Amino acid sequence: MTIAGSRDQKLNRRLRLGMVGGGRGAFIGAVHRIAARLDDRWELVAGALSSDPERARLSGEDLLLPSDRNYGNLHEMAQREADREDGIDAVAIVTPNHAHAAVAEAFLKAGIHVICDKPLTTTVQEADRLAQLARESGLIFAVTHNYTGYPLVRQARAMVAEGELGTIRVVQVEYAQDWLATRVEETGSKQAEWRTDPSRSGPAGAVGDIGTHAFNLAEFIVGDEVASLSAELHTFVQGRRLDDNAHMMLRFASGAKGMLWCSQVASGLENGLRIRVYGDKAGLEWEQENPNALLFSPLGEPPRIIRRNGYGANDVSRAASRIPGGHPEGYLEGFAQLYADIAEQIAARIEGREPNPFSLQVPNVEHGVRGVRFIDAAVRSSQNKAAWVDV
Amino acid sequence: MTIAGSRDQKLNRRLRLGMVGGGRGAFIGAVHRIAARLDDRWELVAGALSSDPERARLSGEDLLLPSDRNYGNLHEMAQREADREDGIDAVAIVTPNHAHAAVAEAFLKAGIHVICDKPLTTTVQEADRLAQLARESGLIFAVTHNYTGYPLVRQARAMVAEGELGTIRVVQVEYAQDWLATRVEETGSKQAEWRTDPSRSGPAGAVGDIGTHAFNLAEFIVGDEVASLSAELHTFVQGRRLDDNAHMMLRFASGAKGMLWCSQVASGLENGLRIRVYGDKAGLEWEQENPNALLFSPLGEPPRIIRRNGYGANDVSRAASRIPGGHPEGYLEGFAQLYADIAEQIAARIEGREPNPFSLQVPNVEHGVRGVRFIDAAVRSSQNKAAWVDV
Amino acid sequence: MTIAGSRDQKLNRRLRLGMVGGGRGAFIGAVHRIAARLDDRWELVAGALSSDPERARLSGEDLLLPSDRNYGNLHEMAQREADREDGIDAVAIVTPNHAHAAVAEAFLKAGIHVICDKPLTTTVQEADRLAQLARESGLIFAVTHNYTGYPLVRQARAMVAEGELGTIRVVQVEYAQDWLATRVEETGSKQAEWRTDPSRSGPAGAVGDIGTHAFNLAEFIVGDEVASLSAELHTFVQGRRLDDNAHMMLRFASGAKGMLWCSQVASGLENGLRIRVYGDKAGLEWEQENPNALLFSPLGEPPRIIRRNGYGANDVSRAASRIPGGHPEGYLEGFAQLYADIAEQIAARIEGREPNPFSLQVPNVEHGVRGVRFIDAAVRSSQNKAAWVDV
Amino acid sequence: MTIAGSRDQKLNRRLRLGMVGGGRGAFIGAVHRIAARLDDRWELVAGALSSDPERARLSGEDLLLPSDRNYGNLHEMAQREADREDGIDAVAIVTPNHAHAAVAEAFLKAGIHVICDKPLTTTVQEADRLAQLARESGLIFAVTHNYTGYPLVRQARAMVAEGELGTIRVVQVEYAQDWLATRVEETGSKQAEWRTDPSRSGPAGAVGDIGTHAFNLAEFIVGDEVASLSAELHTFVQGRRLDDNAHMMLRFASGAKGMLWCSQVASGLENGLRIRVYGDKAGLEWEQENPNALLFSPLGEPPRIIRRNGYGANDVSRAASRIPGGHPEGYLEGFAQLYADIAEQIAARIEGREPNPFSLQVPNVEHGVRGVRFIDAAVRSSQNKAAWVDV
Repeated sequence: MTIAGSRDQKLNRRLRLGMVGGGRGAFIGAVHRIAARLDDRWELVAGALSSDPERARLSGEDLLLPSDRNYGNLHEMAQREADREDGIDAVAIVTPNHAHAAVAEAFLKAGIHVICDKPLTTTVQEADRLAQLARESGLIFAVTHNYTGYPLVRQARAMVAEGELGTIRVVQVEYAQDWLATRVEETGSKQAEWRTDPSRSGPAGAVGDIGTHAFNLAEFIVGDEVASLSAELHTFVQGRRLDDNAHMMLRFASGAKGMLWCSQVASGLENGLRIRVYGDKAGLEWEQENPNALLFSPLGEPPRIIRRNGYGANDVSRAASRIPGGHPEGYLEGFAQLYADIAEQIAARIEGREPNPFSLQVPNVEHGVRGVRFIDAAVRSSQNKAAWVDV
Repeated sequence: MTIAGSRDQKLNRRLRLGMVGGGRGAFIGAVHRIAARLDDRWELVAGALSSDPERARLSGEDLLLPSDRNYGNLHEMAQREADREDGIDAVAIVTPNHAHAAVAEAFLKAGIHVICDKPLTTTVQEADRLAQLARESGLIFAVTHNYTGYPLVRQARAMVAEGELGTIRVVQVEYAQDWLATRVEETGSKQAEWRTDPSRSGPAGAVGDIGTHAFNLAEFIVGDEVASLSAELHTFVQGRRLDDNAHMMLRFASGAKGMLWCSQVASGLENGLRIRVYGDKAGLEWEQENPNALLFSPLGEPPRIIRRNGYGANDVSRAASRIPGGHPEGYLEGFAQLYADIAEQIAARIEGREPNPFSLQVPNVEHGVRGVRFIDAAVRSSQNKAAWVDV
Repeated sequence: MTIAGSRDQKLNRRLRLGMVGGGRGAFIGAVHRIAARLDDRWELVAGALSSDPERARLSGEDLLLPSDRNYGNLHEMAQREADREDGIDAVAIVTPNHAHAAVAEAFLKAGIHVICDKPLTTTVQEADRLAQLARESGLIFAVTHNYTGYPLVRQARAMVAEGELGTIRVVQVEYAQDWLATRVEETGSKQAEWRTDPSRSGPAGAVGDIGTHAFNLAEFIVGDEVASLSAELHTFVQGRRLDDNAHMMLRFASGAKGMLWCSQVASGLENGLRIRVYGDKAGLEWEQENPNALLFSPLGEPPRIIRRNGYGANDVSRAASRIPGGHPEGYLEGFAQLYADIAEQIAARIEGREPNPFSLQVPNVEHGVRGVRFIDAAVRSSQNKAAWVDV
Repeated sequence: MTIAGSRDQKLNRRLRLGMVGGGRGAFIGAVHRIAARLDDRWELVAGALSSDPERARLSGEDLLLPSDRNYGNLHEMAQREADREDGIDAVAIVTPNHAHAAVAEAFLKAGIHVICDKPLTTTVQEADRLAQLARESGLIFAVTHNYTGYPLVRQARAMVAEGELGTIRVVQVEYAQDWLATRVEETGSKQAEWRTDPSRSGPAGAVGDIGTHAFNLAEFIVGDEVASLSAELHTFVQGRRLDDNAHMMLRFASGAKGMLWCSQVASGLENGLRIRVYGDKAGLEWEQENPNALLFSPLGEPPRIIRRNGYGANDVSRAASRIPGGHPEGYLEGFAQLYADIAEQIAARIEGREPNPFSLQVPNVEHGVRGVRFIDAAVRSSQNKAAWVDV
């Protein structure tokens, strides 16, 4: 449990966070800020919170940013923060997808660690180039596939890695919502607007927005790569410019088989991310909407309900847990775990020590690239009668 | 509710049932017998319960069959029963799959109504031929896709038909078990032996045994046909001769999209038949292992839990229900509903009246043919890199 | 599993059942008939199905009773059946509560085994007298506390008996419904009418109708007697003549403590019988509306979901199970188990052998007496400011 | 949703929080700190984190408290903070129970708003005196019955208040855990030690620690007071000095009846706080371990699942919600809501305006007194054979 003394003791300060994007009307930026705050290892000290300078300024005032660090321009921010003695330790990039690459590049070049929302970029080329830049920079580059921060997701991954499921055979993953079941992008929802706009969201809709999370979760837990996929993307809502539903069959490198379903038109579902993994020794199930339980079913034995920080919880999940079992943690705590882990990685660098190995579970730029390759493969397969396409 | 006076009053007798297959060591034969008995419209009076005459005789004695109707040979049975004044009203065919066609043909030719387990046959040609024979005979030919007998499955079908879900967009159906997760066919299990033996089971394993049920359930509830599918069948257990897992993408005639997963190696799952249907007005979910609840989610409203014979239950499901809500009915009652309905159909013919329209929901030979076509399409698609194949 | 060969082989016939009560418009009589039929060990051959002779006759015709055994009078039935060579082996008494004692006495005196619905009688005096008669007769006297027929209820009892829960500390049992939340006894419901009428139902309403089941279930599973109770009965629906809600605290002989809640005005609950038992080694939970699962929580380990006839099911529950795990059994199967067990007890007597010990789990007249004492104690406690009253 | 711009705009600063108790090894103090931080309306600037000065100092250093506000003595802290221009706006009291009264008194006298953990005090006399002091001071005095911060608990309360359940008849509330199922107070657990020590915990164990929460939740949701109760407290673990299980029957002022169960020896339960309320129009259920769903069952209609910030969520629950439905919020967010609301109350005072009425739902000193009276009544009833005692 990280509840007390979670802050790095030697460093003796909070890390300094900057943010690009996430101003008034945004969703995920506010989530990042709560996530950064929750475990008390970060303080937000700078921002370029909107591409519109005036909106940026007002948004920064909302957040009590010091006026000299409330930037109207991200490039100015990157440079000035790089120059300050007390400059930001990392930048959180929470803009629409199409802007990720340029912002990340600017901060990498300024020598600042990057925390980037997903999908990493809107094209494979951009993603590869950014990964190259990141590798060359030697900087930390985290991608917020936040569902990997849930304690029991990490426990599931560890259980697979330790062979508790045996050889993995089948992986069923899905992420279904209903908030785009009607044409809400025409009703003034900023969220819906940019997510259904190819120029800002990239070549895929549901596949890019939530399919990537499902894909990442599957690879994260199974500890294996999807070698190829066969996909059918579809747009159900008339007039919509990007897919709002996709079905896929997956072949993993190890020989496991899987399915992936993502949808934003599944009437009645709110945020239905769910994964089931079946090996020759055991199966497991986890659902994001009920994240404090993990169903573990050893073949031939009654299924067991492992609960966060409860009986059966392992070290990995306990380390990502704040409060006792039975006191539910949720989406914000899972997201916060990424920020706590990134803080640990940065603090370890500053102090010249090895980071806690658990902190290395945060998805990095390579995982970001996988997500973009996944989107690309899905779109191409669907355009070609669901032919098998390598990821 | 059919609890009292379920028996047809005018006919004033129980219908007479014969059975082929289902002797000692069998599973589904015993289920058919309970199903026939439960609503008191049938009595079992004759049988050829095994292809082995001695085993047949002993099995008939177990069941207290009169010795002159405890047959060692199905052809003798068909002929003798056809000749008796008090001959059987229908025969239940519960042999392994490969024998269905010949047995059904013998009884159709003897003028006896047929109740046949699924899948109808092991080839499309046989299925077509049998359907042709059945049509020409004018006899009743029921195929026991028993999950259609569950009250809330019928309610779901009616709700879709009445437009409560709007235009159907997505159908997710799955049927997963774990009883073949190891090579049990080598351990003396008769059930496992014949179901993994192509000569008795047909060209598919899990797809034929349970995939057909999932497929039938989807077409039954959605009231639409699967136009084509893309499938990947796989055998995970080494040495097994038929598939034990299959993933499919489905395209419905109406434009709806779907997925079907069937597996017999999903560690921890017992009999996980589950369907979810999403339309532009509402979604619904039903699980066979919790059959007394139907989750109905009108878009924009809180999901509602409709319970068998409880608040929100419609006439269709009430008619297939015996006891009040909260008193769970299960697999045997669902199966029994088919027998009650077939009895109604036969009684109506005897009495020269129209049957209760609800009774016509029992799957017939045409649905049996669909099941065989489904198996055939899945096998061919999988052999051809999951190409789209018409069903 | 009792699915095949459930019928006693040596006896080589079905047992003969008579029924008193349960004619047109009745509920529980029809349930008893299905229960008797389900496992094929009984045939209904005689009845006095109503206290109204004409209604009795019509009801018997509905059920295809032979006309000479379709009685208008229970005393005539008792005598004539006792005299026949092929007379009934047992009588099922399914009248309203107030008539149980006289009917049972008539059949005991005729030397016929009795299967009586609960509560046994409406007064403790009657109950004691009947128990005395039953003991003197040497006959089998079963009381259909049917929830004891559920496989996992029996498993729970065995687990407690075998010490898997350790010393029992706390027992929480409840049985709540909502069908009497309004004054339905004024709307023509025969069920509601007699159950809220003290002259037919006895001194208690909800306590007698369903509280007794909860009480019986607790004593059955815990294997211990409630020594004393403190109760508050209440009538919420204006004009109702009997309690429709009761709260009780329980002290078990062993020192365990418990609570019992029964209600027929709990809006939204259908048939919510639920029990939770906590010992110093483990806890368990079972709910009647989801009867195929038993939650078992050993202290310090993840809770396990034991499923009927699945992994973790013990011999006791397997013996009361018909079909494989994942194929839900329900209320009727649980009720049928009592009839199968009573058949086994009677067959063993006929054949001069010991019955299968599992069959002896059927509640008998002594358990019936406990139920009546419970009602009496609850009513007296409630009349005396919830003072502790011995049961 | 309070996700963006939750901070009061006019005030233009974070409120300043001090803390007494909650140093190294404590549990609830860390929870209060996260709760205060989460919505960004507070900063922790001062503390006397332990009654042991050295431990206090080290604990404050862990939290990066400025050294001149890292106090070794609470009285010094009260005085010095009262004297500072930038002194704390409120103090959070998170000591063991017996110290609450004296600490609260010190800060009230210093003119500082108080946020006190529950139970308020260990005797009714102390509670009454403190309430008197609080009233006279005119200061804000919040008591952290934190479960009232859950959005759907507030929704439930509003639904009852608006008559959606009709006249309330039955209230079933329980709070059961298993962490004291063995004698952990002998194994070095500081939490267990003081909670089972009458000199620090007060006259009750489970009743004071969690029973009070259950009691508060019932009164909060039902909007009615418990007039009297009949209780049986018991200690199951040998050698323990306070109750670890209690059963109670409740009579509400309005005529509703209820039960309350609290236990710390219920093997397998983690933090099982659950409430069910039944009125003559509808029922509802809520469980703390699954806090994002509220089951609402209007009589005669299918039950509806209302989800936090989802379809069916009302203004009250939306106001206490940060992120969209389907993104689970949990214990910390519920706790944080109290801090956000207290901040709103204080900010409104500073700015001379009315607070948002939703913020007034935070339990205050009068609710704290109710909790202490409840403990007292339960103890007295149990000592007197569960006689009815007024609360």
